[in-house]
Amino acid sequence: MNDAVSIAAAVRESRLSAVEVAQTALKCITQRKELNCFTAITDDSALQDAQQIDRAIALGNNPGSLAGVPFAVKNLYDVAGITTLAGAKINAENPPASQDATAVAKLKQAGAVLVGTLNMDEYAYGFVTENAHYGATHNPHDVNRVAGGSSGGSAAAVAADLVPLTLGTDTNGSIRVPAAFCGVFGLKPTYGRLSRAGVTLFSSSLDHVGPFARSVRDIATVFDVLQGYDDRDPVCTQRSPELCLPQLNRGIENLRIAIAGDYFTKGAEPEAIEAVEQVAQALDITEYITIPEAQRARAAAFLITSCEGANLHMEKLRTRSQDFDFATRDRFLAGALIPSHWYIQAQRFRRWFRDRVREIFQRVDIILAPTTPCFAPLIGQKTMILDGEEILIRPHLGLFTQPLSFIGLPVLSVPIHRSGSLPLGVQLIAAPYNEALILQVAATLEAKGNISTYTS
Amino acid sequence: MNDAVSIAAAVRESRLSAVEVAQTALKCITQRKELNCFTAITDDSALQDAQQIDRAIALGNNPGSLAGVPFAVKNLYDVAGITTLAGAKINAENPPASQDATAVAKLKQAGAVLVGTLNMDEYAYGFVTENAHYGATHNPHDVNRVAGGSSGGSAAAVAADLVPLTLGTDTNGSIRVPAAFCGVFGLKPTYGRLSRAGVTLFSSSLDHVGPFARSVRDIATVFDVLQGYDDRDPVCTQRSPELCLPQLNRGIENLRIAIAGDYFTKGAEPEAIEAVEQVAQALDITEYITIPEAQRARAAAFLITSCEGANLHMEKLRTRSQDFDFATRDRFLAGALIPSHWYIQAQRFRRWFRDRVREIFQRVDIILAPTTPCFAPLIGQKTMILDGEEILIRPHLGLFTQPLSFIGLPVLSVPIHRSGSLPLGVQLIAAPYNEALILQVAATLEAKGNISTYTS
Repeated sequence: MNDAVSIAAAVRESRLSAVEVAQTALKCITQRKELNCFTAITDDSALQDAQQIDRAIALGNNPGSLAGVPFAVKNLYDVAGITTLAGAKINAENPPASQDATAVAKLKQAGAVLVGTLNMDEYAYGFVTENAHYGATHNPHDVNRVAGGSSGGSAAAVAADLVPLTLGTDTNGSIRVPAAFCGVFGLKPTYGRLSRAGVTLFSSSLDHVGPFARSVRDIATVFDVLQGYDDRDPVCTQRSPELCLPQLNRGIENLRIAIAGDYFTKGAEPEAIEAVEQVAQALDITEYITIPEAQRARAAAFLITSCEGANLHMEKLRTRSQDFDFATRDRFLAGALIPSHWYIQAQRFRRWFRDRVREIFQRVDIILAPTTPCFAPLIGQKTMILDGEEILIRPHLGLFTQPLSFIGLPVLSVPIHRSGSLPLGVQLIAAPYNEALILQVAATLEAKGNISTYTS
Repeated sequence: MNDAVSIAAAVRESRLSAVEVAQTALKCITQRKELNCFTAITDDSALQDAQQIDRAIALGNNPGSLAGVPFAVKNLYDVAGITTLAGAKINAENPPASQDATAVAKLKQAGAVLVGTLNMDEYAYGFVTENAHYGATHNPHDVNRVAGGSSGGSAAAVAADLVPLTLGTDTNGSIRVPAAFCGVFGLKPTYGRLSRAGVTLFSSSLDHVGPFARSVRDIATVFDVLQGYDDRDPVCTQRSPELCLPQLNRGIENLRIAIAGDYFTKGAEPEAIEAVEQVAQALDITEYITIPEAQRARAAAFLITSCEGANLHMEKLRTRSQDFDFATRDRFLAGALIPSHWYIQAQRFRRWFRDRVREIFQRVDIILAPTTPCFAPLIGQKTMILDGEEILIRPHLGLFTQPLSFIGLPVLSVPIHRSGSLPLGVQLIAAPYNEALILQVAATLEAKGNISTYTS
């Protein structure tokens, strides 16, 4: 299947019908059931929606920039008529959502066709999508390996070519980690830039929504569709959003790009570091900058996540802790007991850290860093050896993503693929609200052939 | 002694010399030592500063709007050359401050003359100014009674006519409660409107600086002097402040004023409620509004205060808890152990409460409420009977002030005095950044003779 923009063009020009596209997607989804990407498939409504698109085109109406593009969303987005699971068994008892999440509604308004909901770690608390209730999602490039998490279903569905476009969420790396492991593009926008209305939160001060896709222009197109003020979300307040797609091919001659040194070059497999060097070479970049106290930033992000997460789930932790995924329960319970002093100290450090990183962005526009320290681990694998030390895998996969989402920076993970090897990702990081610059760099790398989605 | 504006006019017109004024203030301070308002008296620098003012006037230079006005500050404001105590024995070991707090520097720039620093509850954690290390400050209207706290020295020094102008801080009522008990004006401005740089914080998300004075025009004058962006304070960000003094006599014909009902009419001595009714009658106001969940707001303010306070003092709580005032130590230790869940829940409630109160300010401009539920209690008094119930005094004095500072609203406590009775205060409350409206109402009440400082 092509990328979303190609599909929409073909549908708009009647070279393809939206119904045909939807049928193809639904067939692919069924054929690759063993990947366990989907938790619900919305065949009926998808075909109805596709028919409406085809009818609009036949009538000469504008069907939208994503006309007929099949998409799916992590199962923590509200979809009217479907129970929002957020990966939890407890939520399966809830009534169906009465209204689409704003992001879902915006994609539908742009002509995209929802085909289902996607698997994830329970309550988005994980980097592996090995869900105790709904099973593990398998990596399409090696089905014995994890897809990454917590938006594992979202990344794997795009990588396996089931749909060209999905939505996920990122709190500590939950879009970027699976994007890297599955070899696709995954954008974590600036904190507060896209509406989270109708999305089950995990740790409110860290939660971001964002897209997965197979080309830079798809990411830019979807991002622009998702932008805009939303009075359903008090955090999303940008009244006049700056569109990225029109700026995509501006070139990067005037951009100051640097590589994140120190912390971001250690504790990783050599291939993860080499992926960054490969991108730096393609851009002719040699300068390194230091993001200070990145390790402390990661520790503070861990702490705030568990405190805020525990607060949101307190009632159920009190009454039904045995019904949680074992992998999330203990971390939530620990978070509930953390003294306020630690939480407040972490928030105070956060402001200090944000100010230091803002200073760096006075001197550079884009920073490069690895997305993950390693390739996708095996499903069920508990530990790995990194730098000669045996470490736990699950908490370690966010090593390079956590310090960045901690202060809400926009980051695109771009797929790096060398033949015969599993995919990896490189993070392109900018100052808040500078998604356009990130996408310009990504478009340049894509045009040069240095990055591209690795479908299987 | 006259109010600050009269003194400055007399000094500017050479009817009085700044040195004479300073000498009078220093003499009064010495004569009333038994009130225990001051923790340091800066005789030498005060006389030098006063000489400079007189010299500037002799040379025809503009000495500023507060030329020659003696003032003093709560001993948590940095004053270059003096150790900032913040009421703590532990801080007495610290070196002197190297730089004036921004607020102190601004008053000096306007020609005011610093004569000393003022007593307070340790770390600003109290409503009584019964400091275990530095003694109790006595109420000038009845020396057996407390001055209120935590800015007790600041209120008593103005009420006893030692200086016309002082600065205090207000976290849960620490300007308004002593202003009411001592019968003077005390302004707690909008959160973030005045710079806190160089001020020892207590609970950062609740701390405000503000003035005490004996007339509405003094409060307006000082407030305008203190306004303005300060790059030393990340919270103080207003670039183009709106001055209040020029708006003082605009009248109040178009203002919508209401009385806070329900919570704010209960659990108080009848005289406290009558004081509000007296102000309402003078303004011809009969409408009541309800601030919802005010009791919960007070509980949340308590909780956030103890958590944030404990965080700031954690190192000393760990190593030197025996050197704290017994009255603050146990509350800090309790705060340190509060689970993050409670703190986060209190902050979430705070946003809800702020939004509800914002809705009320769509319909009204000014709300009236009592400042304290009672007259100043006796020094050493532990309990009192209110509504037939015996309650602890210390935690109860902020009953009506805490829900308002919790969401950073500007509030002026105006002095109500009926002959033969101790003073009480009424709070004039507005939406954020509407100090000008409050001062217009206060000026009207003052002109009618309904409120006035009660000096002794």
